[in-house]
Amino acid sequence: MLENLNKYSIILASQSPRRRELLKSITPNFKTISLNVNEVYPDTLQREEIPVFLSELKAKAYEFQKDNELIITSDTIVWLKKEQLGKPKDKADAKQMLQKLSGNINEVITAVTLKTKTSIQSFYEVTQVHFKELTEEEINHYINIYKPFDKAGAYGIQEWIGQIGITKIDGDYYNVMGLPTARLYEELRKV
Amino acid sequence: MLENLNKYSIILASQSPRRRELLKSITPNFKTISLNVNEVYPDTLQREEIPVFLSELKAKAYEFQKDNELIITSDTIVWLKKEQLGKPKDKADAKQMLQKLSGNINEVITAVTLKTKTSIQSFYEVTQVHFKELTEEEINHYINIYKPFDKAGAYGIQEWIGQIGITKIDGDYYNVMGLPTARLYEELRKV
Repeated sequence: MLENLNKYSIILASQSPRRRELLKSITPNFKTISLNVNEVYPDTLQREEIPVFLSELKAKAYEFQKDNELIITSDTIVWLKKEQLGKPKDKADAKQMLQKLSGNINEVITAVTLKTKTSIQSFYEVTQVHFKELTEEEINHYINIYKPFDKAGAYGIQEWIGQIGITKIDGDYYNVMGLPTARLYEELRKV
Repeated sequence: MLENLNKYSIILASQSPRRRELLKSITPNFKTISLNVNEVYPDTLQREEIPVFLSELKAKAYEFQKDNELIITSDTIVWLKKEQLGKPKDKADAKQMLQKLSGNINEVITAVTLKTKTSIQSFYEVTQVHFKELTEEEINHYINIYKPFDKAGAYGIQEWIGQIGITKIDGDYYNVMGLPTARLYEELRKV
């Protein structure tokens, strides 16, 4: 599968173990690097504009790209009532985020950028995520046990909170985990 | 969580390792048994009636239930264009199923039964699963590597075919894996 990629040396610029696993499932040969990027965006940006901007910012931060290198970057945000939920700073912040998510529908938007030496292309996917009304006990239990401080919106769909608290999604599940695998596979076929 | 279940000895009647893992994530203490049931249903049954019937058939097959025992059974079917797709008999059968699923929306329906000595209750969840057009190469690759002969509809959403072939779902992801965890958690809270 994806034999068209054989001529490339693929580089995933991400520190997320979830993204690494998901990319591995669709194409096994790539290396991972970590880029130092100050993830700041203009505050005029809205919704999908934010992860697209940040994903491209990461891709452009890779200097001295070789002719045969294909770099993959991505960014995921949680969007709720016209507001972006980032990674929680601490327990209190995580609790506040989960209280906002409780009983509501949030949108998870992941943007992906594919960059070669002479081209750059980005796309994004949106998944709607429905949370039931979470009890305070459930929120505290989740934060104490799972410590979701590395996760946008303070939740991982693949964790306990996703299993007991998410009643339905509308879109790609893997997009919520951090990489829209079906869309990425289609885009990689065309590279 | 689910302290109300402490008075029960919980028994999951299922041989599926996926179901066992999913139940473990919402309540860790249970034992697993395997029941000998001839999974035959009246051919007048349609759609959700089928897994509800089969799940209850399994629950009723457990004899000599003790007062403190809560038995959990379930059944999952794949429903496509008014037809049930069961487990494929062989490679050719699996290939035919995946060709039917390709480019179409199928419904995965899981029914769950909770049975105590003096009560029986069933519920079900439906998730719509959208497949892209699969190529013959992709279908053959999946069947050869993943051998999906133990799976209704010949696919596992958590496997490669789910990652590259399922563009979106509408409903609970874990329901497609075999157990609607969020709904089950809510029902267990009420037991």
